[in-house]
Amino acid sequence: SKTDSLPHEHKYVPTIIDGLKRLYKTRILPLEKAYRFDEFASPSLTEADFDSKPMVLLLGQYSTGKTTFIRYLLERDFPGIRIGPEPTTDRFMAIMYGKKEQSIPGNAVAVQADRPFQGLQKFGMQLLNKFECSCTPSPLLEKITFIDTPGVLSGEKQRIGRAYSFPEVVEWFAEKADRILLLFDAHKLDISDEFKRVIESLKGQDDKIRVILNKADQIDAQQLMRVYGALMWSLGKVIQTPEVLRVYISSFWDEPYKHTDSTKLLDMERDDLLADLRSLPRNSTIRKINELVKRARMVKVHALILSYLSEQFGWFWKDSTKKELLLKLPDHFQIIQRKYNLPFGDFPNIVKFRNMIATYEIHKFPKLDLRSIKNLEMMLAQDLPDLTKEIPINELHELKDSET
Amino acid sequence: SKTDSLPHEHKYVPTIIDGLKRLYKTRILPLEKAYRFDEFASPSLTEADFDSKPMVLLLGQYSTGKTTFIRYLLERDFPGIRIGPEPTTDRFMAIMYGKKEQSIPGNAVAVQADRPFQGLQKFGMQLLNKFECSCTPSPLLEKITFIDTPGVLSGEKQRIGRAYSFPEVVEWFAEKADRILLLFDAHKLDISDEFKRVIESLKGQDDKIRVILNKADQIDAQQLMRVYGALMWSLGKVIQTPEVLRVYISSFWDEPYKHTDSTKLLDMERDDLLADLRSLPRNSTIRKINELVKRARMVKVHALILSYLSEQFGWFWKDSTKKELLLKLPDHFQIIQRKYNLPFGDFPNIVKFRNMIATYEIHKFPKLDLRSIKNLEMMLAQDLPDLTKEIPINELHELKDSET
Ligand SMILES: Nc1ncnc2c1ncn2[C@@H]1O[C@H](COP(=O)(O)OP(=O)(O)OP(=O)(O)O)[C@@H](O)[C@H]1O
Ligand SMILES: Nc1ncnc2c1ncn2[C@@H]1O[C@H](COP(=O)(O)OP(=O)(O)OP(=O)(O)O)[C@@H](O)[C@H]1O
Ligand SMILES: [Mg+2]
Ligand SMILES: [Mg+2]
Repeated sequence: SKTDSLPHEHKYVPTIIDGLKRLYKTRILPLEKAYRFDEFASPSLTEADFDSKPMVLLLGQYSTGKTTFIRYLLERDFPGIRIGPEPTTDRFMAIMYGKKEQSIPGNAVAVQADRPFQGLQKFGMQLLNKFECSCTPSPLLEKITFIDTPGVLSGEKQRIGRAYSFPEVVEWFAEKADRILLLFDAHKLDISDEFKRVIESLKGQDDKIRVILNKADQIDAQQLMRVYGALMWSLGKVIQTPEVLRVYISSFWDEPYKHTDSTKLLDMERDDLLADLRSLPRNSTIRKINELVKRARMVKVHALILSYLSEQFGWFWKDSTKKELLLKLPDHFQIIQRKYNLPFGDFPNIVKFRNMIATYEIHKFPKLDLRSIKNLEMMLAQDLPDLTKEIPINELHELKDSET
Repeated sequence: SKTDSLPHEHKYVPTIIDGLKRLYKTRILPLEKAYRFDEFASPSLTEADFDSKPMVLLLGQYSTGKTTFIRYLLERDFPGIRIGPEPTTDRFMAIMYGKKEQSIPGNAVAVQADRPFQGLQKFGMQLLNKFECSCTPSPLLEKITFIDTPGVLSGEKQRIGRAYSFPEVVEWFAEKADRILLLFDAHKLDISDEFKRVIESLKGQDDKIRVILNKADQIDAQQLMRVYGALMWSLGKVIQTPEVLRVYISSFWDEPYKHTDSTKLLDMERDDLLADLRSLPRNSTIRKINELVKRARMVKVHALILSYLSEQFGWFWKDSTKKELLLKLPDHFQIIQRKYNLPFGDFPNIVKFRNMIATYEIHKFPKLDLRSIKNLEMMLAQDLPDLTKEIPINELHELKDSET
């Protein structure tokens, strides 16, 4: 079976996850609350965010085989599954483990504290009506959660059909995901402007992206080369990183190959992708540590900016001070950066930040509390490294690599 | 043999070529001379430019197999041939038909009126010392001339080793060429910044470019896919057109394939490329007509610009008038464009043009001679279409396509 060789959960995992939760609650969350980090940047993390299984997000134009891919891996149907040549999947679906089969509507899922989807509430009813959780007792789902998505449509169809912002919702899922799979149909390659926009909204998540050139057995070897070349040519233009995306050329369903001149290649590629998915649970803990490090550094900068700005007011409010502050924001960022010796990469986007801060009474933010900042720094310098000592040495290498 | 199916020269070809020569000499050349088009844009055409065989230009980093490729097609050595793993070919070589084997040094070739290389003189001794003509009695060379080039080197090596501007010389050959083959080594794929610069200097010639992923049998099928994907990814970034370049994945030498899992593909790709080369002689006449059309339109605009500028002086010279003219050149271009209803694409690059014109006594250029312009327009509207009637109908389609 495809899931046979999934590793058992390592015994060190619960210890580390508990440690992360504790550090987040005691060292990071208080600063987030004091300076409204959740409103400026991203919602506070919940228990479920730490406990959640690695997530695989599937994206692609309609009929590229996203839903069939999940079915192929699970080796079974799941509640709400729809497969067909016309646009079929009409909603976001979290396919998760459950002792018995059931479908939970998005409105209900989004208020369950033990599921990592509370953040979806910000997209409102329009999205929640088009979101559901499909629970199935599949062994694979004990290790991985899949997010199936509606296929990207072209032109007007996309705009008219959807009452929520598709790219924004995709971005939300992409941030939570451990792996983003972009599916293309070798038999009918098409990269619409809409899909390009979706890919562009994944900027910053490039290391999670893998590409599947699906249905590759539907054409002969020479045609396949052309299609693959055209795909790489276009992707290279859309994705700005010099590193080449890994593309898996295969066919993910249970039918025999139509053309057999690439059988060996297609088999090897499929195995490579399955191996990659199998490595996700292991890497997920490492990713969670990395993300907490990233978040902590952003929170630190955020707190230093807001306390600094607040201090510019002295003890009372002046409209002119605020105007002046907003106008000279770039200068202030520079002063803060030098004063505390901060990497510029940890600073927020200045335009977004200015728009947000304009809506606040800045002087009400607390003045600098050096002790909390020191605590945060201690956590980065001492507590997190201590935690990572629990991870076997060969996995630490990956942590090192992704940090630089 | 690889050259067996090369078509015999069509009987209509000499008629058309003679017609083109006559039209050029009577309708275009006089205007070129009067307004120094050769100094501003490109040297006047010689008999040899019209008579020349289709040219195939080979480009690539060193050791990608350029010289071996030519040897493979000719099925024989030629004077001056050098093949080897280190950088070997150290000069530009025109491999042409000759009744007996001989090597002619660049300085001599560049003054022979019956060879299309007189234009190389502008690059001076530095280049001519690194150019030679290799003549060989190969049947294939009766149809096609090959230009072998020194491999592109990386970094300092490239700069130090060459006393002429490599990209400028390549650009010169590329303009004359009917086909530009970019060779890459599948076994050691590398696209240096220097080679990127060479590819960028081919801008505007994109329709002539074909890519060869050579030595493709040296790696297995799955590795080959990766390498090919990486190549397309990078090329897509360097070449700005959305159309995907045709890449031929094969191995061009007489040894048997090392890996045999892609034999069928590599064979088909090789045959496709040979078929493409076989079509060159036929398409060459069509290309010559197209280029004369392009040139005539540029000459017309050039003459209208210079006569207009000259007329701004009245009959005597004033330094201030010249200064004023150069300053407002964009405005004058617009006036000329509207007055004569000219396509803006036929106008010269304004910066280059301004630098050139600054060195002339503008008032000495002849005033507008409407009759010559009318003659040129007649040629474009009547004489050239009459000539193309000599070409069989199926080839005319291509003419139409490349005109739009
Ligand atoms: N590997 C494959 N080879 C050939 N056909 C396939 C393959 N996978 C799926 N298909 C077919 O393609 C069609 C679309 O499949 P599916 O519904 O899974 O795509 P989808 O990407 O989920 O589409 P949507 O975006 O509309 O939900 C179906 O008819 C399915 O049988
Ligand atoms: N198709 C091929 N497969 C494997 N090896 C090849 C192939 N073609 C050429 N070679 C080998 O690659 C090396 C370089 O070949 P060659 O001299 O033709 O390259 P080149 O591109 O002309 O190099 P340079 O730019 O230095 O002139 C030689 O050792 C040659 O035998
Ligand atoms: Mg679907
Ligand atoms: Mg060579």
